[in-house]
Amino acid sequence: MQIGMVGLGRMGGAMARRLIKAGHDCVVYDHDPQARAALAGEAAAVASLAALAQKLSAPRAVWLMLPAGAITEQAVDDLAALLSPGDIIVDGGNAFYKDDIARAEKLAAQNIAYVDCGVSGGVWGLTRGYCLMIGGPKQAVDHLDPIFAALAPGRGDIAPTPGRQGDPRAERGYIHAGPTGAGHFVKMVHNGIEYGLMQAYAEGFDILRHRNAPALPEAERFDLNLADIAEVWRRGSVVSSWLLDLCALALAGDGALEKFTGAVADSGEGRWTVEAAIEEAVPANVIAAALFTRFRSRDAHSFAEKLLSAMRFGFGGHIEPREAR
Amino acid sequence: MQIGMVGLGRMGGAMARRLIKAGHDCVVYDHDPQARAALAGEAAAVASLAALAQKLSAPRAVWLMLPAGAITEQAVDDLAALLSPGDIIVDGGNAFYKDDIARAEKLAAQNIAYVDCGVSGGVWGLTRGYCLMIGGPKQAVDHLDPIFAALAPGRGDIAPTPGRQGDPRAERGYIHAGPTGAGHFVKMVHNGIEYGLMQAYAEGFDILRHRNAPALPEAERFDLNLADIAEVWRRGSVVSSWLLDLCALALAGDGALEKFTGAVADSGEGRWTVEAAIEEAVPANVIAAALFTRFRSRDAHSFAEKLLSAMRFGFGGHIEPREAR
Amino acid sequence: MQIGMVGLGRMGGAMARRLIKAGHDCVVYDHDPQARAALAGEAAAVASLAALAQKLSAPRAVWLMLPAGAITEQAVDDLAALLSPGDIIVDGGNAFYKDDIARAEKLAAQNIAYVDCGVSGGVWGLTRGYCLMIGGPKQAVDHLDPIFAALAPGRGDIAPTPGRQGDPRAERGYIHAGPTGAGHFVKMVHNGIEYGLMQAYAEGFDILRHRNAPALPEAERFDLNLADIAEVWRRGSVVSSWLLDLCALALAGDGALEKFTGAVADSGEGRWTVEAAIEEAVPANVIAAALFTRFRSRDAHSFAEKLLSAMRFGFGGHIEPREAR
Amino acid sequence: MQIGMVGLGRMGGAMARRLIKAGHDCVVYDHDPQARAALAGEAAAVASLAALAQKLSAPRAVWLMLPAGAITEQAVDDLAALLSPGDIIVDGGNAFYKDDIARAEKLAAQNIAYVDCGVSGGVWGLTRGYCLMIGGPKQAVDHLDPIFAALAPGRGDIAPTPGRQGDPRAERGYIHAGPTGAGHFVKMVHNGIEYGLMQAYAEGFDILRHRNAPALPEAERFDLNLADIAEVWRRGSVVSSWLLDLCALALAGDGALEKFTGAVADSGEGRWTVEAAIEEAVPANVIAAALFTRFRSRDAHSFAEKLLSAMRFGFGGHIEPREAR
Repeated sequence: MQIGMVGLGRMGGAMARRLIKAGHDCVVYDHDPQARAALAGEAAAVASLAALAQKLSAPRAVWLMLPAGAITEQAVDDLAALLSPGDIIVDGGNAFYKDDIARAEKLAAQNIAYVDCGVSGGVWGLTRGYCLMIGGPKQAVDHLDPIFAALAPGRGDIAPTPGRQGDPRAERGYIHAGPTGAGHFVKMVHNGIEYGLMQAYAEGFDILRHRNAPALPEAERFDLNLADIAEVWRRGSVVSSWLLDLCALALAGDGALEKFTGAVADSGEGRWTVEAAIEEAVPANVIAAALFTRFRSRDAHSFAEKLLSAMRFGFGGHIEPREAR
Repeated sequence: MQIGMVGLGRMGGAMARRLIKAGHDCVVYDHDPQARAALAGEAAAVASLAALAQKLSAPRAVWLMLPAGAITEQAVDDLAALLSPGDIIVDGGNAFYKDDIARAEKLAAQNIAYVDCGVSGGVWGLTRGYCLMIGGPKQAVDHLDPIFAALAPGRGDIAPTPGRQGDPRAERGYIHAGPTGAGHFVKMVHNGIEYGLMQAYAEGFDILRHRNAPALPEAERFDLNLADIAEVWRRGSVVSSWLLDLCALALAGDGALEKFTGAVADSGEGRWTVEAAIEEAVPANVIAAALFTRFRSRDAHSFAEKLLSAMRFGFGGHIEPREAR
Repeated sequence: MQIGMVGLGRMGGAMARRLIKAGHDCVVYDHDPQARAALAGEAAAVASLAALAQKLSAPRAVWLMLPAGAITEQAVDDLAALLSPGDIIVDGGNAFYKDDIARAEKLAAQNIAYVDCGVSGGVWGLTRGYCLMIGGPKQAVDHLDPIFAALAPGRGDIAPTPGRQGDPRAERGYIHAGPTGAGHFVKMVHNGIEYGLMQAYAEGFDILRHRNAPALPEAERFDLNLADIAEVWRRGSVVSSWLLDLCALALAGDGALEKFTGAVADSGEGRWTVEAAIEEAVPANVIAAALFTRFRSRDAHSFAEKLLSAMRFGFGGHIEPREAR
Repeated sequence: MQIGMVGLGRMGGAMARRLIKAGHDCVVYDHDPQARAALAGEAAAVASLAALAQKLSAPRAVWLMLPAGAITEQAVDDLAALLSPGDIIVDGGNAFYKDDIARAEKLAAQNIAYVDCGVSGGVWGLTRGYCLMIGGPKQAVDHLDPIFAALAPGRGDIAPTPGRQGDPRAERGYIHAGPTGAGHFVKMVHNGIEYGLMQAYAEGFDILRHRNAPALPEAERFDLNLADIAEVWRRGSVVSSWLLDLCALALAGDGALEKFTGAVADSGEGRWTVEAAIEEAVPANVIAAALFTRFRSRDAHSFAEKLLSAMRFGFGGHIEPREAR
């Protein structure tokens, strides 16, 4: 079926290609002419949202794959002015679910349907397929089923979980999670879990790496090969996972990870997940700790740490050693 | 090759079977006659450690698969009295790595080799194979290679990580991690990571489940199907893992998990991992938080919580509500 | 000077009394006639907001001491309809600072000044005085100085910190922290710190209390007297504080704290403090952990804990023990 | 009474002075001649442990105020060779309570009594007095009562907690907490609490300080004066404490705390407190988080953080920004 794809970056470009490969008819737009040109051989590449709207037949479906926040917000507003009743906008970015709710309400006044779709899969999605978590009105979600099915990984060789009853699409890698916002909410928690999982591996490998610290008794010091350990854990162990595969890949290349500074960005989802936990009064110690580690990683030192030293000096006259490690 | 297996519980029994299937000659012992009887058709089942020692040809190899702590300790001592120079004891349980170091030293005086082997794979290992992390003297580890190879999953269909150089055994599911204690140390950190991973999933699903809390604004409440969400995440998402497969299985059966009380046991490894982190001065916020969640889960209420209420009453006259949820 | 006090509960009633004692002229209102009656001998008690507005001379000043949220919001709206340009509303409750900003803007359109004042001191404030953190326009804050000075503790016998330059009022127990919202923001962080402090004491006493656990080696078990320990720490130790005084008081009465269930309420400030930290990308591990402890304290068991057990059963066949403690 | 004081550093020197001022007869020793010389006018300063032992009359009492660990251990051994049955050794340093138990047993064979005494008060103890937590045999503790009483703050103007029954010494600033090890155990938990309290203040002031971050909406940005805030909280607020007094002092001098690098040392007590919590299966989220903050503060970046970036690059092609703050 026909779909417009707006935003042809790392994610959007690959998703358009996966749709084209599956036989869908993509009209693509990016504000960057080079990004458009890269897809021009495979899809109808247009130079403006207006051209995109014109090129699509009613009921039009436009998939946004843009940075969350102001850029997506603007694109939704611009499109709203170009689309007609019965058309559908899908936001596949990492929008905040409360923004989805506000947008859907605004668009509903124009009779334009809004679908929020959390997309996982990263740079590997083109070949593996994308895991999709969809929120919004049933009619629009059903209408776009061929698109979702093409983007999703499909059954592949992963056996369905025995005994599950529920959305049959889950076994093909996409679900209609609930009303507007539910798709991005599920994707947000997905990313919150991802923060926690990543931090668990990161701490574990950090502990392994420091087992050779000079301060330890000699018989208890081990010079461990982290790449070998990651590799062996991929096979039959309880901690095997796709993230572990990525650790193995990184550690095989450069065991000391020297090309990384250690500063770690956070997108919004980790923050929002902790805020959602707070709203619900659910303890989220691990996800919060993972988030705070990222915050801390971006400062040379925190003011909090300086105040600790100031107090220690105050009560004990302690002078901190110059940085030792 | 020939090996003695001591301890025929959930793990040891299945490991003996996997070895037998691979053509190895197992002499098996358990203090429970029923456990011995269960394997009697497939292996030489003996009724005492002395009989086991007698039945094995020199150099003897005995694999212990017993609860860590006093029981394993006793078995090592008993065996030491029955074995001869050149024999090998393997401890496949979850021993504390510092205990391995003490034991190896004691046995070395008798010229008995001691190998510590961390084993992951749980009840699924019989068919999937066991991931093995081995510590100890090279000669003994090399001697037992056919045993390790048979227990491990083998290459299977998991592609080796490109670019890795190191222990080639890792790709077949076992490694010689280092000297005595290194095997159990790596397994200990593996389990510490496991605690963190499990807690990350647990918090995420808890946040999803409480998205229907009456206190939330109606438009932001979603009645999410956790089994569907777990299933879809198994396909193409960044959080896919074997532990997620287990979540999916559990949630498919009983979405409310009502048969579980919520009290969660901890074996030693989580505690030891945090202690190792402390020894090394490595921050381990996530693993520690996962451990503390288990501690907390086993109390109706903590004394700490009562003291919080007592302080609140002291400064604000606050009376806590009777438990509300 | 003359002031209206709305809300005569534990806090508001005592604050009115402290103002009256200092010679101020209070017009008091509460929706509960009994609360009004309790102050009728000392102050002009009125039966409605309208009567309060009428009884006050221009420029009127009205202090709200009501539960944060909808009740305060309604009172502000009701008063706005009764007051005149040049009048002042002070909110002394625990409002969310973003709500202050919205309110102040709305009231500014009517030329009514809005002052947000964080108040600490609890049930002890009547005699000790209240620590005040004030936000809002300078003119209004200066106008109300006699009120703030009377509520605050004054210099007392606490020596001013040497070398500080800044707001001289700080030494008398109140500050003008900044523009609208700054008062409640500072009070919010104050309460966030309070959560962390309380949790630190709570954990420490919990560790002391469990030093008698049967699982510990006998020589390392101590049957400690928590009331004695709290008392001695009040004298010359680094952890002495007012909260410790309250611990000592509670533990002296009932060392097992049996009258407390262990469920601990949280008001908004802990949540908002963590949210503010997230907005600012500041790590707040301790305050977040303190907040999550309260969340957890209110559930018999968390869903997260059940899922942990479900995973443990899935990979290891582990059956959790019935609750043991 | 007569006492030997070994170790005349910041703590030991001031303690000797406090004892001398109270009329006690001190024989002092330090391996540093300058430290001995500084006290020579007030006390009998000797040049060796042997001289100290000789100078004291039986039953001798020797107080060690040395760095915990090897140095104290050596001094105990050296003294044991010089003392006689009936003599007493007091360790006033921050020894690990399990070491106390081992030492006491060893010394008991020689009939030398061993007393472990946790001392709080830091550089302020000379004037304020020291809070003492004492473990060991009743006879020795009672014998040394005049010493403990002189070091402790005494009743001062802190009203005893009403209703407490128990050790009357607590009101004068010292307690006999229990058998050998109990003194240092209580001191250890005291310091663990101190870690948590300090971190709570540190996080709070960090949140206040970052309220001026450019990323925040302008109306929600406040340029707060931390010194004023600390000062006002000292007066009538729930968070007032001695540690807050120290924060106020530090912030009054240099609001940006620029002379501190942010690296924060940890002595053993924080680590041991978390280990004790783990032994007891008591959740200690706040104390552990405070400890981990100190660990983290001493690294430019953690390996864990680099691995997070490596995973992010692996799944999303994310390149971390150069450090931004």
